[in-house]
Amino acid sequence: MTTSAEDRSGSQGSYVEPGEFKRDTNYITTRITADGRDGYPAEAGRYRLVAARACPWANRTLIVRRLLGLEDALSLGLCGPTHDKLSWTFDLDPGGVDPVLGIPRLRDAYLARFPDYPRGITVPAVVEIATGQVVTNDYPQITLDFSTEWTEFHRDGAPDLYPAHLRDEIDEVAHRNFTEVNNGVYRCGFAGDQDAYERAYARLFTRLDELTERLAGQRYLVGDTITEADVRLFTTLARFDPVYHGHFKCNRTKLSEMPVLWAYARDLFQTPGFGDTTDFGQIKTHYYAVHRDINPTGVVPVGPDLANWLAPHGREQLGGRPFGDGTPPPPPRAGEEVPALG
Amino acid sequence: MTTSAEDRSGSQGSYVEPGEFKRDTNYITTRITADGRDGYPAEAGRYRLVAARACPWANRTLIVRRLLGLEDALSLGLCGPTHDKLSWTFDLDPGGVDPVLGIPRLRDAYLARFPDYPRGITVPAVVEIATGQVVTNDYPQITLDFSTEWTEFHRDGAPDLYPAHLRDEIDEVAHRNFTEVNNGVYRCGFAGDQDAYERAYARLFTRLDELTERLAGQRYLVGDTITEADVRLFTTLARFDPVYHGHFKCNRTKLSEMPVLWAYARDLFQTPGFGDTTDFGQIKTHYYAVHRDINPTGVVPVGPDLANWLAPHGREQLGGRPFGDGTPPPPPRAGEEVPALG
Repeated sequence: MTTSAEDRSGSQGSYVEPGEFKRDTNYITTRITADGRDGYPAEAGRYRLVAARACPWANRTLIVRRLLGLEDALSLGLCGPTHDKLSWTFDLDPGGVDPVLGIPRLRDAYLARFPDYPRGITVPAVVEIATGQVVTNDYPQITLDFSTEWTEFHRDGAPDLYPAHLRDEIDEVAHRNFTEVNNGVYRCGFAGDQDAYERAYARLFTRLDELTERLAGQRYLVGDTITEADVRLFTTLARFDPVYHGHFKCNRTKLSEMPVLWAYARDLFQTPGFGDTTDFGQIKTHYYAVHRDINPTGVVPVGPDLANWLAPHGREQLGGRPFGDGTPPPPPRAGEEVPALG
Repeated sequence: MTTSAEDRSGSQGSYVEPGEFKRDTNYITTRITADGRDGYPAEAGRYRLVAARACPWANRTLIVRRLLGLEDALSLGLCGPTHDKLSWTFDLDPGGVDPVLGIPRLRDAYLARFPDYPRGITVPAVVEIATGQVVTNDYPQITLDFSTEWTEFHRDGAPDLYPAHLRDEIDEVAHRNFTEVNNGVYRCGFAGDQDAYERAYARLFTRLDELTERLAGQRYLVGDTITEADVRLFTTLARFDPVYHGHFKCNRTKLSEMPVLWAYARDLFQTPGFGDTTDFGQIKTHYYAVHRDINPTGVVPVGPDLANWLAPHGREQLGGRPFGDGTPPPPPRAGEEVPALG
């Protein structure tokens, strides 16, 4: 346990078993709900989502916020791709201070609520603007609550990313993907010895092969529309070739050498809400600059060439209705765009 | 300048300009020649070649020795893939001692000749067996001398790897390949800062693109047969995907994503003398275990999948006569085989 954000993508971890990276999954579990039962009702303008485009866990919230059209109800503060030992920082903002919260470090919002906060300072976090206090950083719950508790504020045509009749299947698929893939790549990269690495590597590619099989004949992971399960897998796949393949030694093949997953990932990337929240530059800078323990020079690779994310994917022929009975979101709003590819 | 082999593939280097890796190219330039003008005549049984399969510079000598059939005249000692701060070692041999030279460290042969030898202990080296002294470690000259000074000991059907009428062109191509590619990958991997890395990366891929153009319409680099130029390029290409792509951040594309170079490299790999002197396991272990300065954990990646080196390359259609008027070498002799792929 550390008392500050450490070099694990801002997500706290430790080595509980010899050689094996274990993610600390203790988060602030206060929930923002429609009925406000934890004291924090969903309310337009009351909260600010703090994310970092670099972070795969935070990227999920950026996608879901956009797909559901929560931009008007929930403003966005963005931390830069690197952070110091203490905290993610608002170094991208003028003066290095978030213009709404008025703080230089996300840590300030954690300490405002818990002066002795003992765990990592992680993104995403939802902060109550008036008090400056973090309400929650429980990222798996945050996106589900966006889908189910913030419905009053959804845009017209917002998709149902967590349909009631598919929740068990979504939860199961997402759980397996978390242990083997989303967190699996970290277990590869942060393995303290060869054995731990090889175990993590085997599990990762076993699961990716299962996903190839699953996705060969169906466009999305669960049902025939985009769901929370796709959002969660996407943010890891997007980081696979630029970071995990080399930096984390997940190098059996590149994503671009796994045809089904690569087409699946491109399909999502080219869907509004996914590629337009993905900033490959920030992603690469984050991992390579922050993890000096595995990349001592801090040099950020120039490659790989990423223009191929825009190549045709051919997945339409599998059918599927990306937004179900809903519609795609409009383009990102001014000030929230990511740099174009290439 | 260091007084021992340092962590640079056993090839000494230093940082002369800020951030930029500069290879020390001062070698022991004594030559073994037909006329023995340096005191060391080419003679069967008098010398021992000491190499390490891991090292690209040493791998060249293994290829040329096999292509020319020098095995009877020149025996082979092999160091293991890793080495300590002092020296490459004979840790693969029973008792950790070279059975002919009777020494545990290659350094012993350097010190036998120069008690105060001030530079890196590098492979390849040619050692005079009777005195136990290193004659030369000047690897670019060693292979040329195999071709031109050891002709008396060549096998029947040995190819001419350094034909007189093509030497200028071979020298020119090989020189450009050395600065941009063979050594270029090291300048990427050992760059001390982002700028030096990006300059090295740009030069590397510029040259690889030039080579793609050159090799698109001709089977080999110079003339229509295998020459020294191909040997020198091959040992770097063989290490590209297993090591340089990730470990040295040469990651615009994998070799397997550069169709012309990839087919060219497979063509050579499948030619006797090339693939059968290439040990991917030792190659990976060497770089990832030895360079703790850029891979602190020492974990060796499981990937990439290398079975595709055996896929058809289709380069026969470009014509070319691999061995010119000569013939392919017979299989490696017992005790000198490398593990089969996969």
